[in-house]
Amino acid sequence: MERLPGFRDFYPEPLPQAEPWSADARQYIFKKWRAAAELSGFREYDGPPLEPLELFTTKSGTEIVGQLYNFTDKGDRQISLRPEMTPTLARMVASRERSYKKPIKWFAIPQLFRYERQQRGRLREHFQFNADIVGEADAAADSELIALLINSLRSFGLTEADFVIRLSSRNAWHDFFVSRGGLPDAEYEFYQIIDKLEREEPAKTAEKLQKIGFDLPSVQEFIDRGEPTVELAGVMGDLQARGLGAYAKIDYQVIRGLAYYTGIVFEAFDRKGEFRAIAGGGRYNNLIKLISAGKVDLPALGFGMGDVVLLELLKARALLPAFGQNLGAFCIIESEDLRLDSLSLVQSLRESGISTEYTLVPAKSDKQFKRAQELGATHTLRLVRKDGGSLEVRIKNLATREETTCEPAAAPCILRAALA
Amino acid sequence: MERLPGFRDFYPEPLPQAEPWSADARQYIFKKWRAAAELSGFREYDGPPLEPLELFTTKSGTEIVGQLYNFTDKGDRQISLRPEMTPTLARMVASRERSYKKPIKWFAIPQLFRYERQQRGRLREHFQFNADIVGEADAAADSELIALLINSLRSFGLTEADFVIRLSSRNAWHDFFVSRGGLPDAEYEFYQIIDKLEREEPAKTAEKLQKIGFDLPSVQEFIDRGEPTVELAGVMGDLQARGLGAYAKIDYQVIRGLAYYTGIVFEAFDRKGEFRAIAGGGRYNNLIKLISAGKVDLPALGFGMGDVVLLELLKARALLPAFGQNLGAFCIIESEDLRLDSLSLVQSLRESGISTEYTLVPAKSDKQFKRAQELGATHTLRLVRKDGGSLEVRIKNLATREETTCEPAAAPCILRAALA
Repeated sequence: MERLPGFRDFYPEPLPQAEPWSADARQYIFKKWRAAAELSGFREYDGPPLEPLELFTTKSGTEIVGQLYNFTDKGDRQISLRPEMTPTLARMVASRERSYKKPIKWFAIPQLFRYERQQRGRLREHFQFNADIVGEADAAADSELIALLINSLRSFGLTEADFVIRLSSRNAWHDFFVSRGGLPDAEYEFYQIIDKLEREEPAKTAEKLQKIGFDLPSVQEFIDRGEPTVELAGVMGDLQARGLGAYAKIDYQVIRGLAYYTGIVFEAFDRKGEFRAIAGGGRYNNLIKLISAGKVDLPALGFGMGDVVLLELLKARALLPAFGQNLGAFCIIESEDLRLDSLSLVQSLRESGISTEYTLVPAKSDKQFKRAQELGATHTLRLVRKDGGSLEVRIKNLATREETTCEPAAAPCILRAALA
Repeated sequence: MERLPGFRDFYPEPLPQAEPWSADARQYIFKKWRAAAELSGFREYDGPPLEPLELFTTKSGTEIVGQLYNFTDKGDRQISLRPEMTPTLARMVASRERSYKKPIKWFAIPQLFRYERQQRGRLREHFQFNADIVGEADAAADSELIALLINSLRSFGLTEADFVIRLSSRNAWHDFFVSRGGLPDAEYEFYQIIDKLEREEPAKTAEKLQKIGFDLPSVQEFIDRGEPTVELAGVMGDLQARGLGAYAKIDYQVIRGLAYYTGIVFEAFDRKGEFRAIAGGGRYNNLIKLISAGKVDLPALGFGMGDVVLLELLKARALLPAFGQNLGAFCIIESEDLRLDSLSLVQSLRESGISTEYTLVPAKSDKQFKRAQELGATHTLRLVRKDGGSLEVRIKNLATREETTCEPAAAPCILRAALA
């Protein structure tokens, strides 16, 4: 039986096939994301992987449904697997915002889903690191959030030579749009055109711009000048003070297609331009009000970073460690009359925090030794009965081949010291 | 907008409402499960939360569909959110078993789903710790798996006074059934009757037993005697050797309703009998062959432990720690001309592994100090400009009120030492 198309299985390493993902790689990435968030004072939250379809159409309009993994449940409810985390965050914050002091700094690591009929072979799920700040309108919050994005990428060993945050601002584009006589009805379309600028034929872009009263050269000139707004200058100054200035630059080509952004927006890209965006985010000051039908009105901003592009980038830059079983000890049972005493030893090792394996059924010593090596054990332990009848443990360091002998009760302590 | 009925939101603590779950409690439980599994040499895996409906009906028959969270997707596929992990494990193992040495010892922490129309207010999802051993028919594997179950519960601080593993055996019941002249067609029904024994009226049970040629007194006598099979005696001996004998007992009342078990079965219960089963599992030697349509034939066994009952039990036994933000440092910014230097200090603290917060916008010192206390910071740091113009850091231990002064560059090192 096969798994569903577009979904991934996560196997333990070493992997038989050269997929960029595995259970180990996933856990490695989750740990780094979590650690970076916690260092910056962000708290974890999560919601259900399923939400009422309406939560997503309220935010993005009904045209989003074509991309959603939506269905009708047994109670005739319109349901969708979550395509993004922000609406759930907005719902959760709106329902309990009085219980939390502002600013709220939260993160989550949700699995997200989409279902576009036409695109075969494309993944229908991925995991995403989401971090958001709610309740602070000042751009100081934007800086703090972008600093987390940079620090989380740095925690994987990525440097300013590997990635850059392209900073832009809806406000800057709004001012440009209004100052050149743009009409309110055409503003969202204008943003869509800018969003496609890098991927579309210039002639086509020029034609589209002309239809709403703009021209490509002046748009291009605005981008090339890259004059920072007061807000963006503040963010750059903040990041520079943190020693992170080299990780960000003003780039008005970034605008983010989504209708709901209201201020600073940004995307993280690899410097070589080999991959899709690593992460993206920005301000969405109106969303919580929208989702809560006007009951709660709080400014907010956030970013999302997917696991798939990140894994590809880390793999390409040789920044993924070699994953495998990190076994502390393998207990070799040389004869079956020592099995019960060996089980006692295994339990005492595990209780003292040492990951320990042994063979479940009788096997020759050399086979057990080979198994210990396969599992990456750093030490083997063997119980031996001395002439007087009492037991001793022989501990062997598999790297140095050194052997130590001790009483069974002392083995966990000695091994812990050796592993420290 | 509301979340779907039967689903949970996971908020950060401290919680405004007295729910037994939170994002912090969930992460605490996941960490303990993961640590226990890794100490015993189990490796992590995961599959998609959605599978073809057929995967579950192949295992459990079409009558299971009434309990599943199933639906039709946009591609007209029959889909189900996973109600349990074992079929996914069987699918994954069957498709790649040649790449992994036996025994395969794997664990997962999936979110599982069900949808029964009639039961309102009941949760439709929970998380489950799943551990399985594949490829070893000897009961030594059963002992190793049960030892993991015991050790994982002990890692939460639960003792032999809190819980017990009730051990039973399908083989023992099979022998009983056959030796008393039971007919093969009635065997599964017989197991269902035994499974309901504790919850059903004795008269009703007696009547049902009679219909298939059995009587309640002889069944009760078999249970009361609790004569261990050779296999079960071996498992008890193994657990005793590990010092875990007091955590398990033979109890033939446990039989597990699911049709697919083939050997030793077990359930973990709180000693006071206040809660539903904490965990349950057993051998299912035929499942991988069934799921792989005969291509792969490997003996297997496993258990599942849900998060909901465990959380209730830990809460009742006062074994859940007080969760909250574990902040290392709060940087107080006393005047805005020190903001950029303070941001540099914040970054250096975070880079050295100290979880650090500060106020995003100007605020009075006493308000910042109050915020530091609310966030549970152990220390505050304040930059102060000395007469000569250079900067120094005042580090205050919020518990002892002691204050230390140092140069900004030395602050991370001094604070790390204080936190160690």
